Amino acid sequence: MHEKIIVAIDGMGGDNAPQMIVDGLALACQQLEGVEFLLFGDSEKLTPLLDAKPQLSEVCTLRHAPEAVSNDEKPTVALRNGRHTSMRLAIDAVKEGEASAVVSAGNTGALMAMALVVLRTLPGIGRPALATAIPTETTPAIMLDLGANIECDAEDLVQFAVMGEVFARNELGLEQPSIGILNVGVEGLKGNDAVKKAAATLQDSPLPIKFYGFVEGDDVSAGKVDVVVTDGFTGNIALKTAEGTVRMFGHFLKEELMSTWRTKLGAFIARPALVRFRARFDPRKYNGAMLVGLNGICVKSHGGTDAIGFANAVGVAVNLVRRKFNDRLKEDMERLISSQPERKTAAAQ
Amino acid sequence: MHEKIIVAIDGMGGDNAPQMIVDGLALACQQLEGVEFLLFGDSEKLTPLLDAKPQLSEVCTLRHAPEAVSNDEKPTVALRNGRHTSMRLAIDAVKEGEASAVVSAGNTGALMAMALVVLRTLPGIGRPALATAIPTETTPAIMLDLGANIECDAEDLVQFAVMGEVFARNELGLEQPSIGILNVGVEGLKGNDAVKKAAATLQDSPLPIKFYGFVEGDDVSAGKVDVVVTDGFTGNIALKTAEGTVRMFGHFLKEELMSTWRTKLGAFIARPALVRFRARFDPRKYNGAMLVGLNGICVKSHGGTDAIGFANAVGVAVNLVRRKFNDRLKEDMERLISSQPERKTAAAQ
Repeated sequence: MHEKIIVAIDGMGGDNAPQMIVDGLALACQQLEGVEFLLFGDSEKLTPLLDAKPQLSEVCTLRHAPEAVSNDEKPTVALRNGRHTSMRLAIDAVKEGEASAVVSAGNTGALMAMALVVLRTLPGIGRPALATAIPTETTPAIMLDLGANIECDAEDLVQFAVMGEVFARNELGLEQPSIGILNVGVEGLKGNDAVKKAAATLQDSPLPIKFYGFVEGDDVSAGKVDVVVTDGFTGNIALKTAEGTVRMFGHFLKEELMSTWRTKLGAFIARPALVRFRARFDPRKYNGAMLVGLNGICVKSHGGTDAIGFANAVGVAVNLVRRKFNDRLKEDMERLISSQPERKTAAAQ
Repeated sequence: MHEKIIVAIDGMGGDNAPQMIVDGLALACQQLEGVEFLLFGDSEKLTPLLDAKPQLSEVCTLRHAPEAVSNDEKPTVALRNGRHTSMRLAIDAVKEGEASAVVSAGNTGALMAMALVVLRTLPGIGRPALATAIPTETTPAIMLDLGANIECDAEDLVQFAVMGEVFARNELGLEQPSIGILNVGVEGLKGNDAVKKAAATLQDSPLPIKFYGFVEGDDVSAGKVDVVVTDGFTGNIALKTAEGTVRMFGHFLKEELMSTWRTKLGAFIARPALVRFRARFDPRKYNGAMLVGLNGICVKSHGGTDAIGFANAVGVAVNLVRRKFNDRLKEDMERLISSQPERKTAAAQ
């Protein structure tokens, strides 16, 4: 029997909210045992949607939020004026201890800004990072930062490595995940100062982590490491480049297969393989990026996802709560800090 | 009738040199009219290979080079001790006016270092950039920098934009290529200082260029712009991420299609489509990255390519010479510099 977990939900975030959100929660409550929802949003819109889902209504409490953060709202503006938005109230619920996690499919920048201000970082962590699981040729890997921090120094990267390691143990269930730093070459001399210094620190780290060294862009999808550490600028561009490449590949594959009667017939016969193939790259399977390093579990869903994808993001949040992700992260951060007294001050600033 | 062009070739660079190089030149001399080669390398090894290709031998002059740059040689060491290597002598031939371009499949770092020292940059250009054509859902695009410069400021990016624009007009035959700067978002407020300042400069530029603005990682393969400008760290990682994703995609597609008798049959019938599909992503078609911004045409071939890929890289070099790439680039750089007098000094430093 699972302990009861309450997840706060931003009911108004995402391209097809609130319908998609309610559909996603209905799916999630079938998939997840012992989970209840605290749903924030426009009660006039949400009430009829919930009424149509009796099973969900049993585990879902609705809280009216008079406003919603729009997709083009600047983070600073959302932070200043958005105190009554569904996003902000959902984050507040975690801060107040009413919920163990928050999930939003809304404006990423606003979510990061609000979550950082409301929840604050864990002791020893300078900046939270956005982390998610990605497919590789072997087993999935964890990649971070995916865009929370545009400029990162060596210490940030070292913290991302520790956070990613704990995330991989939780989310992927690995005993000792290997960690690589994304770089333009694998030799120690390559790259910018931040990656070189971070690699040196991790190489000498007293933490029981498995540091692989540098990895290149094509090593990521080859599955060379379980955790890929990078700054938010590079990580965001690499992830979106991979997503775009998958789309381009699928587009051309379809175009060629549909080009003649013969190839259409072949594609029809090979259909089971093509269906399984598409399922491997289904972005919904990998939906749910965690903003890791905060006093609370905060998961960002893709704004354009559907109910299946949103339910998956809720599942990510529940897993992290259930496996006590933040407690394990705090322990590792304490070990890291106490092993490097000279860094203590810098990290605490 | 084409004007005669002489291309200097590093005969010893690349995983399967010198056999692959000679095979590639034999192909290139069939494809390209009015082109002759000045081939540098170990004459004992190269003479029998050339003897086996009578057609090539007619347009190929062999020059003995007693040494070769190894793949793991550090650029600084290659620069200091590599004066008698096939790579260096081939670059020297461009400097001396004996050849109009140099092509090497050898050590990238050594090639960049040697080419920079020997050929030097064109007036007004701070640093050369590595540029290549990449496939997109629409027409191919030019991307730069792919790794020549790990850290870049706004002025570097602006220069890359101008160089990329001229490259796209030459290599892709476009009349007015559109230019985008790779970033983590399309709004003006996103990104690091370098991309924000570079975008502002290009927006106000008096040059007759078509500046699109920012593009994200997935916009590149969608073909949103003809020229993608980025720093060498991000560009290298993005390009290799895309290459790795294509490989992963192909790996899974094959695995699924070969999984049962039914899907194998379907794949057999759809074979023409799968063959055309594979050809679209053939890396040999896109082989040949230019080190742009130098006093001379210098093209880098993938080290692991074959004769077809190497012949393509030679073709890239010949096109650039024939279309007077450097003259056009010089004109544009002069216009850029004269339009921004306050930048003149900085660029000249």
